Amino acid sequence: MAKLNEYRFFDSNEKVREIAFELYSGVKDLPIISPHGHVDPKILANNTPFPDPTELLIIPDHYIFRMLYSQGIKLESLGIPTVDGTGVEKDHRKIWQVFGDSYYLFAGTPTGAWLSHEFSVVFGIEEKLNSKTAMKIYDAMQEKLHTKEFLPRSLFEKFNIEVLNTTDGAADSLEYHKKIRESGWNRRVIPCFRPDAVVNITAKNWKKEIEALSKASGIEISSYKNYIKALENRRQYFKSMGAVSTDQGIVSPYAHQLSEKEVNGIFQKALKGSATEDDANLFTANMLMEMARMSIEDGLVMQIHPGAMRNHNKIIFERFGADKGADIPLQTEYTKNMHELLNKYGNEPRLTLIVFTLDETSYARELAPLAGHYPAMKLGPAWWFHDSIEGMTRFRQNVTETAGIYNTVGFNDDTRAFLSIPARHDLSRRVDSNFLAGLAAKNIIDIDEAKVMSRALAYDLVKKAYKL
Amino acid sequence: MAKLNEYRFFDSNEKVREIAFELYSGVKDLPIISPHGHVDPKILANNTPFPDPTELLIIPDHYIFRMLYSQGIKLESLGIPTVDGTGVEKDHRKIWQVFGDSYYLFAGTPTGAWLSHEFSVVFGIEEKLNSKTAMKIYDAMQEKLHTKEFLPRSLFEKFNIEVLNTTDGAADSLEYHKKIRESGWNRRVIPCFRPDAVVNITAKNWKKEIEALSKASGIEISSYKNYIKALENRRQYFKSMGAVSTDQGIVSPYAHQLSEKEVNGIFQKALKGSATEDDANLFTANMLMEMARMSIEDGLVMQIHPGAMRNHNKIIFERFGADKGADIPLQTEYTKNMHELLNKYGNEPRLTLIVFTLDETSYARELAPLAGHYPAMKLGPAWWFHDSIEGMTRFRQNVTETAGIYNTVGFNDDTRAFLSIPARHDLSRRVDSNFLAGLAAKNIIDIDEAKVMSRALAYDLVKKAYKL
Amino acid sequence: MAKLNEYRFFDSNEKVREIAFELYSGVKDLPIISPHGHVDPKILANNTPFPDPTELLIIPDHYIFRMLYSQGIKLESLGIPTVDGTGVEKDHRKIWQVFGDSYYLFAGTPTGAWLSHEFSVVFGIEEKLNSKTAMKIYDAMQEKLHTKEFLPRSLFEKFNIEVLNTTDGAADSLEYHKKIRESGWNRRVIPCFRPDAVVNITAKNWKKEIEALSKASGIEISSYKNYIKALENRRQYFKSMGAVSTDQGIVSPYAHQLSEKEVNGIFQKALKGSATEDDANLFTANMLMEMARMSIEDGLVMQIHPGAMRNHNKIIFERFGADKGADIPLQTEYTKNMHELLNKYGNEPRLTLIVFTLDETSYARELAPLAGHYPAMKLGPAWWFHDSIEGMTRFRQNVTETAGIYNTVGFNDDTRAFLSIPARHDLSRRVDSNFLAGLAAKNIIDIDEAKVMSRALAYDLVKKAYKL
Repeated sequence: MAKLNEYRFFDSNEKVREIAFELYSGVKDLPIISPHGHVDPKILANNTPFPDPTELLIIPDHYIFRMLYSQGIKLESLGIPTVDGTGVEKDHRKIWQVFGDSYYLFAGTPTGAWLSHEFSVVFGIEEKLNSKTAMKIYDAMQEKLHTKEFLPRSLFEKFNIEVLNTTDGAADSLEYHKKIRESGWNRRVIPCFRPDAVVNITAKNWKKEIEALSKASGIEISSYKNYIKALENRRQYFKSMGAVSTDQGIVSPYAHQLSEKEVNGIFQKALKGSATEDDANLFTANMLMEMARMSIEDGLVMQIHPGAMRNHNKIIFERFGADKGADIPLQTEYTKNMHELLNKYGNEPRLTLIVFTLDETSYARELAPLAGHYPAMKLGPAWWFHDSIEGMTRFRQNVTETAGIYNTVGFNDDTRAFLSIPARHDLSRRVDSNFLAGLAAKNIIDIDEAKVMSRALAYDLVKKAYKL
Repeated sequence: MAKLNEYRFFDSNEKVREIAFELYSGVKDLPIISPHGHVDPKILANNTPFPDPTELLIIPDHYIFRMLYSQGIKLESLGIPTVDGTGVEKDHRKIWQVFGDSYYLFAGTPTGAWLSHEFSVVFGIEEKLNSKTAMKIYDAMQEKLHTKEFLPRSLFEKFNIEVLNTTDGAADSLEYHKKIRESGWNRRVIPCFRPDAVVNITAKNWKKEIEALSKASGIEISSYKNYIKALENRRQYFKSMGAVSTDQGIVSPYAHQLSEKEVNGIFQKALKGSATEDDANLFTANMLMEMARMSIEDGLVMQIHPGAMRNHNKIIFERFGADKGADIPLQTEYTKNMHELLNKYGNEPRLTLIVFTLDETSYARELAPLAGHYPAMKLGPAWWFHDSIEGMTRFRQNVTETAGIYNTVGFNDDTRAFLSIPARHDLSRRVDSNFLAGLAAKNIIDIDEAKVMSRALAYDLVKKAYKL
Repeated sequence: MAKLNEYRFFDSNEKVREIAFELYSGVKDLPIISPHGHVDPKILANNTPFPDPTELLIIPDHYIFRMLYSQGIKLESLGIPTVDGTGVEKDHRKIWQVFGDSYYLFAGTPTGAWLSHEFSVVFGIEEKLNSKTAMKIYDAMQEKLHTKEFLPRSLFEKFNIEVLNTTDGAADSLEYHKKIRESGWNRRVIPCFRPDAVVNITAKNWKKEIEALSKASGIEISSYKNYIKALENRRQYFKSMGAVSTDQGIVSPYAHQLSEKEVNGIFQKALKGSATEDDANLFTANMLMEMARMSIEDGLVMQIHPGAMRNHNKIIFERFGADKGADIPLQTEYTKNMHELLNKYGNEPRLTLIVFTLDETSYARELAPLAGHYPAMKLGPAWWFHDSIEGMTRFRQNVTETAGIYNTVGFNDDTRAFLSIPARHDLSRRVDSNFLAGLAAKNIIDIDEAKVMSRALAYDLVKKAYKL
């Protein structure tokens, strides 16, 4: 990618472009609040140099290697570790060359846009990555990665990150969060409570996870009642470590309170390993109700991320494990599925329930009308496959007219790739500025409103929604 | 809102903008035909002054107060009357101040666009509503509301309304329509036959509604056969009072003719109060078939509005009643559900069946192909949450290529808020002009075609479709 | 339509327009590869003149007559032949006049755009078709149709068609393909293997089709095993006649391998005429698995076209037969339905599985994520109702960010109307050039990338995907 154009991603129309640039200029240097993501806190706890460009950018990023895989490049040849430890490519320069050869595949994708930003803004590399330049770029990056300026904490500061949320299992000791706190480094890296592993009662490792939860909480989990107590205990611990939110990844947002007898019956079956898929769905539905109740009690913001069928490709899952680019969205229904939850808790001022979706058809049809009515409900930003120029634009176009912008919660990057954080926030600030510029150019809003809204989308809303 | 820009809502591109302005200029002063809406005919029958801005704009408009509610403002504090009559805010100036404080929430929403139009064009107020200006604006409006020019009939004439349709229950005496007719005022305000209350056999008040229907028609309703006779009788009465159409609000457009035995069986169960939800769904499906048959016989245009889950928020429903901004759309299927109806009546030249949707996913996939084939079926305009700049634009973009514009029926405002009628029609004329200008600027149509189409969308199509 | 503007269909913005024109100029004269369509090979085998404009353009084109029908024009009056041979309009000039009277209905539709191209570019007619010009245009076209330049093969050459795929039943003798090959004409017209008639076990003519398949393959079909052998045999024959692909039109993409016992049981029921709809659905699901396996073995590209409810209008179907503009799309699910197929064969490098859809909601939600992961799966272009300016634009906007362009397969015209082939390819090249120009103008891609991608979309990708 040649030198990045400072007007990139803005509308081609001169008038919109100029307003977008003006709005963007007002927000581009605001601190980054990253209220939801998957960066490993160990990186910031240990603060050791990133080993090399391949280890940094390719191996942890399923956005990248799934695209290469779709074009027939084996994951083994990209160095993706196997579950059983059988051999994969170890030569990281060779892997980078494959990446360079295939970089054209990302033209027009958000991954392409983020990588351009990372190369240019973070590494100062202006040359376009391709077969010929691959090794030269690798070497230039490698050199920088071993300087002090490229240590994780230096980058964190350079990126102007105000808060970084990680995502952590219910039984997690949060040792790296502790280490960061104890290190005297004065930046805010906080955990988020994600109980999926102890909620999915038919998952292979559920029993093990329950044991870990029991150990972590010091509560023997022989009944549903104690299970809930253990979760409440862990939420308190997370809070004490700075957490402001929880997160649940679910297939469907169906919520339904079971009677104590019903739910304990299912829980006992689960302990015996005999719970069915129907049991699991009911149990998850029940846990959405419980998590909402707990959030009202302890004040943690509740997030739900429904609609992904995880590990669609069994061959890949068995050989390489989870999160390998084979999670595929499903159609998702909210109006009926969330009826009981919203009736019970949706009018509750102490609850903030942030809902994400991979099913854009629900933006205008279900989510905006729900968030435009229930005080507890807010809409999370365009998520995952939709964290992109077109995706974010569709989100604003579909949601704003019914829910306004004040029932949305700004941006989150949801990334595992530390270096992509500023790239993703920059892209989001550009796209939102451009959206507002479009409204202003059409006299739907005036420029003063646009400025206030632009700042709200970039900074104020996320800070308020997550109580930061 | 500062003085309204005369190019507002048009594309930022100069060429499109100029063509849009030219097209809009040709249609902006055409009379308004409002073929579907919810204005109370009493307003025009009595022709007394609107009491004050809060009573006029806020209390009857769920578009406005649901947005305030979503941001934590209690409906009580907005003066929304409770079902049990327990106290709510009575100080309308205080309510208006809350509205002024929160007016920024409507930036980028159609409500914001309509209100700007009402303030500026109807009241001549150019200042922006906010915390500081709220009381000043209230007073200015209040003063105008007590002038002769602001009497309902004066506004009706000023708005250049050619026909206004109301919506009326099957048992309605249409007394205010009668009063208008008898008053010698020569404007056309006509009823629309909406039988929902006597079709929803499991609704709490159904038996009462049946008694009212019986009384109104003079037909004892002890059997399905007599029930149908009573409906036919009322349709005749509505026709005699000027009605040209019927309307049904349904959850699903599923249509299915039951045998006389089946349907009478369900009807008898309903009379005994023992009908189930399944019975109710079958009965509604059957009534869609009956209503189509009756329309073929008596010539009333048939409208169906499927896909809203009414009164989603039970707490709000129990405290404040229906139509409080908590009706939430559902996914809706047409291809299979309307199969029987379209097979039986879709080829019938005497039937005009206008279908609305809240589920935009069906525009291009199901509705445009159906309307682009069946002679009886036409598409109603972008409805409710989609009666907006983006919503109408998506409607045209999704529908036109398959169904053309001649299988659509122009605009309707569907409003309870009398003052929003010209605002809504103006917005619609702007958006359609802009859509056509986009086609012309890309040489998809030429300017002569655009002019004819622009007039068709603003006036000709609605007049023809509703046989006005 | 007046003389066609050479910038037609491009964005109104000057910058996008100019880039689009530049990109389009680079691809507009590339040969046409038509990898999927329904042109009758007999036309090219016999190479006799097209009889007249009505016979050429109206009678075979359901895009045209369904629109006229939707506006109340009887199919009889358009000369559409009836199943029972009862009389329809025979005066082709009179039919053309009706068409001219109604031509305004196509404003803003792809049919309108294609016809404009055909009149202007193919026939050199610059006057707009309407009531007054209809007969003059008819006569001018009629004159040309009887010149040598308008013989089918002359047009084929003038259109610069490199390959034309037809669609042919499993039992088809491919006699016209043979005739073309033997004629010494050196152009490539190849068959595509479409087994629908022998797969739909509950279709009225299934037994007859099985007999024809048996005869064509020389294999007695008394068991499922032999049925499969017969299909394999025919695929070999098609391959020997130049075929590179298969195609299946299905309601749902549900794929599931039955046990040999199960499937033979269903097959035996089918032979006895007692198979149920459930049996048929399972059988089709099983045949998707079989067709994928066969494609891996014999190398034919596999295409699936799910989601149309065929012959929705029974009155029209019984009087005029299939393909009369009454096929209506259905919602379609891919993530779950294709799970088993993709798990078994999706990682297979020898398989190319091209998936089409009529349900645009699945573009970004399901299809792009699937094609952006599984090496075997590619996305077919915007299909049927979506083969249009807006439809193709939505396809690119929804698919590119997740799947890139290299998991798509260029354009196909899917047409029965021979004359529309260059019109459709030209429109597609314009729309894709314009899409890429939009990306370039926003600095999402650079102009060099845009040029490579433009050529890929117009020519390279289709050639590679179909192994041509």
